[in-house]
Amino acid sequence: MKKVAIILSGCGVYDGAEIHEAVLTMLAVRLAGASYRCFAPDKTQLHVINHLTGQPQPDETRNVLVESARIARGDIQPLSDCHARDFDVCLVPGGFGAAKNLCSFATEGSAMSVDSEVVRVCREFSQADKPLGYACISPAMVAKIHGEGISVTIGNDKETALALENMGAKHVNCEVNDVVLDKAHKVVTTPAYMLATNIEQAWEGIQKWVMQVLALAEKHHTF
Amino acid sequence: MKKVAIILSGCGVYDGAEIHEAVLTMLAVRLAGASYRCFAPDKTQLHVINHLTGQPQPDETRNVLVESARIARGDIQPLSDCHARDFDVCLVPGGFGAAKNLCSFATEGSAMSVDSEVVRVCREFSQADKPLGYACISPAMVAKIHGEGISVTIGNDKETALALENMGAKHVNCEVNDVVLDKAHKVVTTPAYMLATNIEQAWEGIQKWVMQVLALAEKHHTF
Repeated sequence: MKKVAIILSGCGVYDGAEIHEAVLTMLAVRLAGASYRCFAPDKTQLHVINHLTGQPQPDETRNVLVESARIARGDIQPLSDCHARDFDVCLVPGGFGAAKNLCSFATEGSAMSVDSEVVRVCREFSQADKPLGYACISPAMVAKIHGEGISVTIGNDKETALALENMGAKHVNCEVNDVVLDKAHKVVTTPAYMLATNIEQAWEGIQKWVMQVLALAEKHHTF
Repeated sequence: MKKVAIILSGCGVYDGAEIHEAVLTMLAVRLAGASYRCFAPDKTQLHVINHLTGQPQPDETRNVLVESARIARGDIQPLSDCHARDFDVCLVPGGFGAAKNLCSFATEGSAMSVDSEVVRVCREFSQADKPLGYACISPAMVAKIHGEGISVTIGNDKETALALENMGAKHVNCEVNDVVLDKAHKVVTTPAYMLATNIEQAWEGIQKWVMQVLALAEKHHTF
């Protein structure tokens, strides 16, 4: 049974992990016969957004790990406990949390930095020749983590794609139900809710994404 | 296209709607070719639980509608805006939120009461001969809403089943991948995470549950 590490970034599309993407990732992993463990950085969220109004709640603070635990039904560990040696694959669902809590893309654009634990974990997988998947906006981190020239997708938004290219990524337009594979880096990306207008579109893309990343792990074991 | 009202009770298994159940309900509804709208009571949660530690956070308050909006990606309305005339089916996923925010089962057991808007909405569906589905712990509300003698399941937990029988329900033991149908009341229940030990078990039961409730709506339209 292949083992998957899932990195969450809070709980809710506007300030945390996109909940549908996170849950559908878990479902796809299990339906593919693999197991998963959830991780999140133990730190304060950038901010808290009222998801009914879309407005910030400036009087409130929440912790990324504590809120991510809601999606994981309490079964989650700090990202500092995540080591590539324990897993075959690493998956990063999207949501603004990926661009606010895992890196600073939401506030700093191309001048962003990536959380040091996220960098450490994701590079560990690469160095061990193990595949990674990034969905939705989380491919924004990929060039800073894995190096320039890497092919990724965030769907087809020109402004966001340009920001990624400014960081050295090669952006490839992609449909909601498809993925972009960078074979050399063993990194698979998919647009998910960057393009999805409903949950079954997100499901189609995420299922394909999970299967592709697991297939790369297969090859890792075979050759 | 059949229209489904989904009643949420917060965001997170220990103080709100069970996130996997809520998301899988949405996925099952859309894959079945139906549409959904989300609703939740606009009121303060019973309390806030830290999902990492399982302990209450007594210094914090959260609103059921505002937190439910996280699962609904902001696309949600107050339960007071939900009217059976606009829908074919009503679904209530579980999580402790159902027993803490939609009714008082978690604190009062068989002496519990049900939120007045929940009672109003669910009885409207019944009075219009439209089917309802309750998952996980939410069947605890069913006898108080729809009357004594109704057949429901919360899985196989004896103590919980006895509490439901004390309120006048007829409890039927049920496997995680199955449902209990009360034909006379057009009410379908399924254990979901009362029994599920992983997300694909929850998915199997919830998919069957959604299909059964939608099939009852089919019959409503046909005859």
